[in-house]
Amino acid sequence: MTRAAEHEQTHEREYDVVVLGAGPVGENVVDRVRAAGLSAAVVESELVGGECSYWACMPSKALLRPAIVRSEARRVAGLRAHAYGPLDAQEVLAHRDEVVGNWQDDGQVSWVRSTGADLYRGQGRLHGPRRVTVEGAEGDRHVLTARHAVAVCTGSRAVLPPLPGLTGARPWTSREATSSERVPRRLVVVGGGVVGAEMATAWQALGAHVTMLIRGDRLLPRMEPFAGEHVAAALTERGADIRTGVSVSAVVRDGSAGPVTVVLDGGDHVEGDEVLFATGRRPRTEDIGLETVGLEPGSWLAVDDSLRVDGFDWLYAVGDVNHRALLTHQGKYQARIAGAAIAARATEKADDAVAWGPHRATADHAAVPQVVFTDPEAAAVGLSLAEAEAAGHRVRAVDLDLRGVAGAGLYAQGYRGHARMVVDLDREVVLGATFVGPGIGELLHSATVAVTGEVPIARLWHAVPAYPTISEAWLRLLEAYRDGDGADGS
Amino acid sequence: MTRAAEHEQTHEREYDVVVLGAGPVGENVVDRVRAAGLSAAVVESELVGGECSYWACMPSKALLRPAIVRSEARRVAGLRAHAYGPLDAQEVLAHRDEVVGNWQDDGQVSWVRSTGADLYRGQGRLHGPRRVTVEGAEGDRHVLTARHAVAVCTGSRAVLPPLPGLTGARPWTSREATSSERVPRRLVVVGGGVVGAEMATAWQALGAHVTMLIRGDRLLPRMEPFAGEHVAAALTERGADIRTGVSVSAVVRDGSAGPVTVVLDGGDHVEGDEVLFATGRRPRTEDIGLETVGLEPGSWLAVDDSLRVDGFDWLYAVGDVNHRALLTHQGKYQARIAGAAIAARATEKADDAVAWGPHRATADHAAVPQVVFTDPEAAAVGLSLAEAEAAGHRVRAVDLDLRGVAGAGLYAQGYRGHARMVVDLDREVVLGATFVGPGIGELLHSATVAVTGEVPIARLWHAVPAYPTISEAWLRLLEAYRDGDGADGS
Repeated sequence: MTRAAEHEQTHEREYDVVVLGAGPVGENVVDRVRAAGLSAAVVESELVGGECSYWACMPSKALLRPAIVRSEARRVAGLRAHAYGPLDAQEVLAHRDEVVGNWQDDGQVSWVRSTGADLYRGQGRLHGPRRVTVEGAEGDRHVLTARHAVAVCTGSRAVLPPLPGLTGARPWTSREATSSERVPRRLVVVGGGVVGAEMATAWQALGAHVTMLIRGDRLLPRMEPFAGEHVAAALTERGADIRTGVSVSAVVRDGSAGPVTVVLDGGDHVEGDEVLFATGRRPRTEDIGLETVGLEPGSWLAVDDSLRVDGFDWLYAVGDVNHRALLTHQGKYQARIAGAAIAARATEKADDAVAWGPHRATADHAAVPQVVFTDPEAAAVGLSLAEAEAAGHRVRAVDLDLRGVAGAGLYAQGYRGHARMVVDLDREVVLGATFVGPGIGELLHSATVAVTGEVPIARLWHAVPAYPTISEAWLRLLEAYRDGDGADGS
Repeated sequence: MTRAAEHEQTHEREYDVVVLGAGPVGENVVDRVRAAGLSAAVVESELVGGECSYWACMPSKALLRPAIVRSEARRVAGLRAHAYGPLDAQEVLAHRDEVVGNWQDDGQVSWVRSTGADLYRGQGRLHGPRRVTVEGAEGDRHVLTARHAVAVCTGSRAVLPPLPGLTGARPWTSREATSSERVPRRLVVVGGGVVGAEMATAWQALGAHVTMLIRGDRLLPRMEPFAGEHVAAALTERGADIRTGVSVSAVVRDGSAGPVTVVLDGGDHVEGDEVLFATGRRPRTEDIGLETVGLEPGSWLAVDDSLRVDGFDWLYAVGDVNHRALLTHQGKYQARIAGAAIAARATEKADDAVAWGPHRATADHAAVPQVVFTDPEAAAVGLSLAEAEAAGHRVRAVDLDLRGVAGAGLYAQGYRGHARMVVDLDREVVLGATFVGPGIGELLHSATVAVTGEVPIARLWHAVPAYPTISEAWLRLLEAYRDGDGADGS
């Protein structure tokens, strides 16, 4: 067979479910529909395992964990003399490479195949209702028909703003920031969200001098204000230059190895060896055939709580692409729900439409958790005070300086941290909680259970935190609420 | 006035509430009854702040935290070269001294006085119903009458078994183990409970060679078996000699500076420079006048869920003395409940008798949390599988190797740990959970909220753990439960 003939060859196949995108979200949809006995195909144009495994959560945390542990070692007696030494950057980068499997996806491919799903490598595109075409790199072409559902799980990618000179300046996005093989002497970070704050923390600990350029007034703008304030203060104390209220107007890099100059509105400029643009995400939906089913290429896909695209009975959008919560764990949660809903509709002809039931991603509205692995860590779940007020709840926020918690002082000398609990005064349940401080990452899930479980304040008094853990923050927050501390919301 | 006359002088005073013992438990009873507007006196024969502040939780955790952080530093890339050095023991011990305020209680005294309670220093004893006498060190004598309640919060002390030679061998108890100013070259630890396991961990990290002599078959016998097994394996890898199924028959120490020899049943013996007996606690009720109200000196005091002693309407026993749960945080919980119940009965003439209400320490039966600050940490709340079965619940335990959790692998290279969730199959709620592994201490409170809140399994599916935290163990446990892994009880 000639190469030309091979190119023309088209294979047709029918499945119960076709999934576009084999990141953690697509994998979880596959897992759930396969568990229900449905046949499934999954299409991936890059590495199986997705952004999270190779260019986001996994490598970023591999880079951040040594920074956090060094910081903790500096704050306990008996270790300080050792812990002041610099991190061995080559050792950290090599470990990062190992964590991402050297950007090879063999393990993930095996896992997908073990579910009994078929994996198609190539660009998948909708081709009218219930049909997906796959163009493989080898010129092979497949047409897949979905009896019950197509699930779009293609995720999101970094947005680069349309600035003069930016493309030619080879900026880092989250991908380069998590996969770089060398430590820049000077790193300019544009953007103060989670990616900007985490990567500033990691590369600073690995030896870079960091400048952050933030359009708004603070880091971590989607959390309670004190979270970003604590993180910014720590970055600044360690030598970062954080500038708020600034906008980038152009980027200049001459030649291939020279420095990069970031020009600000007003004419000021900052020089660095690399510049990271962490300025938002857009959906990876430009080239998946949305136009063949009447949707707009490049758009976020609006869905209902079963993750089904508005106006369709067979099309689902799960994870980042639906813009409900751009977080791996929340996408996986949606994937479990969507997979179960697809299976129920396919086999029982009906899903369970109850809020908090197995086929409704109710937590997307009420209890999305996030841990930011900065130093100090920041973590939040549910509604912030401002969000709760905007949603019309009658609320009170109670605040706590974590220095008053015995377990915090034992965790790290000179501990600094803060917590806030937002209480619904009508139902006497917790609507949200935010923590910032060393060692609070694993503490968040207690708040997630309280918010999700709608556990009444009166019952939370019986949930005794072990002494002396940082979790005793809960007791102090309840005491502050009981004693009427804190401001009632409007 | 002559010394003799002064000695004879007796001061009489009436209060609403008299509290025996100014540890954390007594302090919390005082806080609650004062908040309700009742007058209160508190009597303390030693340091205000109690065992926890000076010879238990606080100093032990000050000793343990550096050991844990060093261990974590050894398990991240980039720091290992530094972290293999020994701990600076003098720096750790000096920090411990600082944490316990150099065994001065000025700060705690100020706090008690700030509540408006009167503090009496000296030995307090019941003297018939509602009366307490205080013999001060200066020969002063006070007779205090309690209009509404006397609360016994005198705690517990270490038990030394009646072994030949033991007293003369100057053994360590938990007090000496937490306050020693020097590191013994060889430490023999008798007992494998929490105190034994924690102190073995601390002194091993500070440089001692540790031998543990355990009568039973494992460490941490009150937790699920795997907890003690993980802790023992780690101690052993670091060089400890752990012997199970052995009993001590005698202890020999010649002279003041010589080594101590611990003789075992069967004639074998172990030599050390110090020997710690961590073999249980007894109530500090020998000399508090129990005989004047018809109770037996030295006995544990049985109470109802409002912490009132059985058969009395004015006598309460709160914290260790009632033998419900010998833990500081649980004693403080009981103190809040008892204080509120005393105040309700004094002011409203009735308490709220509902389980999980403000006047019933219901969690004592269902949700007592404990974190053991060993390396790895061990933590549990609620019922173990054996306890749940013994209580007649129809249960299933699901188990999880924490190595399968992405966040665990990122937390520490070579992570080892285990988790178990015990589910009530009739009500589909979690009855208990146990975790062992690095970094799980703050994770426990999520289980405490789930158990206390009786959050249904179906709802826990919506409590999404942030990726990649160790808390994702929850997701894996729920999956294992859904997929029918694990053994059904009985």
